[in-house]
Amino acid sequence: MKNRQILLAARPSGAVDESHFKLVESDIPRAGDGEFVVRAHYLSLDPYMRGRMDDAKSYAAKAELNDVMVGAAVGEVIESRNDKFRVGDFVQTRSGWQEYGVSDGSGVRKVDANHVPLSAYLGAVGMPGVTAWIGLNEHGKPKAGETVVVSAASGAVGSAVGQLAKLKGCRAVGIAGGKAKCDYVVNELGFDACVDYKAGNLDAALATACPKGIDIYFDNVGGAILDAVLNHVNAFSRIPLCGQISGYNDPSVLAIKNMRSFLVNRIALRGFIVSDHMDLWRPALAELAQLVHDGKLKYRETIAQGLENAPKAFIGLLKGANFGKQLVKLI
Amino acid sequence: MKNRQILLAARPSGAVDESHFKLVESDIPRAGDGEFVVRAHYLSLDPYMRGRMDDAKSYAAKAELNDVMVGAAVGEVIESRNDKFRVGDFVQTRSGWQEYGVSDGSGVRKVDANHVPLSAYLGAVGMPGVTAWIGLNEHGKPKAGETVVVSAASGAVGSAVGQLAKLKGCRAVGIAGGKAKCDYVVNELGFDACVDYKAGNLDAALATACPKGIDIYFDNVGGAILDAVLNHVNAFSRIPLCGQISGYNDPSVLAIKNMRSFLVNRIALRGFIVSDHMDLWRPALAELAQLVHDGKLKYRETIAQGLENAPKAFIGLLKGANFGKQLVKLI
Repeated sequence: MKNRQILLAARPSGAVDESHFKLVESDIPRAGDGEFVVRAHYLSLDPYMRGRMDDAKSYAAKAELNDVMVGAAVGEVIESRNDKFRVGDFVQTRSGWQEYGVSDGSGVRKVDANHVPLSAYLGAVGMPGVTAWIGLNEHGKPKAGETVVVSAASGAVGSAVGQLAKLKGCRAVGIAGGKAKCDYVVNELGFDACVDYKAGNLDAALATACPKGIDIYFDNVGGAILDAVLNHVNAFSRIPLCGQISGYNDPSVLAIKNMRSFLVNRIALRGFIVSDHMDLWRPALAELAQLVHDGKLKYRETIAQGLENAPKAFIGLLKGANFGKQLVKLI
Repeated sequence: MKNRQILLAARPSGAVDESHFKLVESDIPRAGDGEFVVRAHYLSLDPYMRGRMDDAKSYAAKAELNDVMVGAAVGEVIESRNDKFRVGDFVQTRSGWQEYGVSDGSGVRKVDANHVPLSAYLGAVGMPGVTAWIGLNEHGKPKAGETVVVSAASGAVGSAVGQLAKLKGCRAVGIAGGKAKCDYVVNELGFDACVDYKAGNLDAALATACPKGIDIYFDNVGGAILDAVLNHVNAFSRIPLCGQISGYNDPSVLAIKNMRSFLVNRIALRGFIVSDHMDLWRPALAELAQLVHDGKLKYRETIAQGLENAPKAFIGLLKGANFGKQLVKLI
C-alpha cells in the first residue's frame, strides 16, 4: 500500500496545463505523537488554487514547487495518536492533493456524515458555502425586496448565494455560461432569473433580468462582467468580491472602465476571503448544514474519479467546464 | 442696485470654457412670507459642480440650462420675513452663483463669523471639511500608526484629511501637483510627506513616502493615481472615494487596471458624498470649528474677485490651478 500525491511541478505563466503537476508515490505517513492519519475520500478543487500556483503576493502563502498541491479534503481517520481524533472519525482537513495525510489537528474539523453527505462538507456546508454566507450577509447585508446578482451562479459559491438571497426575500439573479447552467439555476435552484454571459449583449440581459436595478452584486469572476454590472447598480449598492476567475491567467482582463459608478452610486465594494472571518464559520456552518438537511439549500457536484484525474478536472474548472462543485473521488 | 447672476448657458462635452456660462443682471429679489434675502460675501467653487453641468445621472440633480449655477455661499441677511433668520445674521446658503439670493431657510445654517473667519464656512468648517471628516472617520476608520494617503492634498478636502489623520496619530502622506503645493503640504500643514504626481515615477515615490504601505487612501481624483496607489495598499486597507476630478471631462481616463489588489488585499472601497451623512454634520462641524479656532487645522484660500471672474476661477480649479480652497469674493 502506497500513498499517491500530486506535486506542483512548475509554475504556469498564463493557462495551466498538466505539465505543471506531477503524480508521485510515497509511503503512507505514520502518526507521530499527537498526530493522526486521514485517508481522503474526496478532494476539493477550487478556483483559489490557481493563485497558489503563482509566485506572487496574494492573501495566502503560495504553494511551493515540488510540494503537494494545497487543498481541502474530507476523509476518515485511520490511525491516531491524538486524543481528540479517533480512528473512524470523519474529518475535513487541508491535507492537499494526496490520498493519505497526517495532521496534528490544527484546522481540522470533525464532520457528521449521517446528517449531510460527506462531500457536502467541501461545498455547501464547507468553505464555498461559508464564503457565500459571509459575503452575502456580512458584506452584502441583504434586505427583503432587494435584487441580488451573483456570477458563476451554478458554482459552489454562486449557487449558495442565490438560494440564501431567496431565503432573505430578495430577487436572485444568476450569471452563468450557457443555457444548461442557466436553466439549472432557475429551474432547480429557484433563482428568479439567470443571464447567460456567453449569449452576448450582457448589458441588455442584465437590464431585463433586473428591472429594479442591482442592490448587491456578489462577484466571483471580475473583469467584463463586473464592468457590465456597474452600469446597472443602484445607489448604495454593495459588491462583495471574493473571486476574479476571469483574470487568474491574465490579470489585465480584470481592468474596469465604469469606475464613475462607484462615486455616482456610492458603492461599497469589499474584497474578502472566507478565512478573514473565522469567527463566523460556526454560525454559518450550523445554518448551512440545517438548510442542506432540510432540502432548502441544493447543490450539484461534478466528480472526477481518482487522484490522477485531479489536474485535468482542475484545468476544466478554470475554464468553467464543471457544473456545480468540482470534486475528486479518491475511494 | 441690481443682482448679478451666472447662468449655465450650455453643457460642456469635455473641457469647460467660459462659453458655457452667461452673466446676467436681474432685480434684487424680495423676501416673500417666511423668506429672507442674503447678500453673498463669498461664493464657493468646488469640483463637484462639474458633474452638475452634465446631462447625466449622478448623485444629485443636474443644473438646468439657463438657471443660476448651483453652489454654496456665505453672506449676510439683508431682509427677512422669517422668524428664525434676522437682518444682520451671517449664514451659509446654497444660493448659487449670484450676488443676492432668496431662501425659506431650508438647508441654510447660521454661522459665527467671530469664532472663525466667514470664508472658512465654505472650506475647513463647511462641506469640504465635513467631507474630509466623514470620509476619514466613517469610512477610513484610522488607527494610530497607520499610513493615510490623500490626493489633491493641498485642496480644501485633502488638506483637512491629512491634518485630521495626523491628529489621530497616523502617518499622513499627500499627493499634489508641483513642488510648491508639496512643500506647503509638508511644511505648513505638517504632513509627513507629499508626492508630486507631476514629477513622474509615481510608483517609486509612493513606495518611498509609504515605507509601511498604505492603510487608507482618501481618493479625490481617481484614474492613474488610484491605479498606482493600488500597488501599495496593505491588507484590509480602506479607500473612501469622494471625487474623480481626473475624469470629470473624460470618464475613460478613470479606468483601473490593478483590480486584483481589491481581492488580494481585501480592500474596502466606498464611494460617498457628504450629503449622504447629514446626521454627522453637527459633530463634524463642531470639531472642525474648534480645530480651526485653535490653529490646529490650517487651510489656504485662492480668492477670485468679483462674480464675473467665477467661470475663469472654476475652469482653473478643474485644472488644479487653485491652491487650497477656491473662493470668489463678491463684496
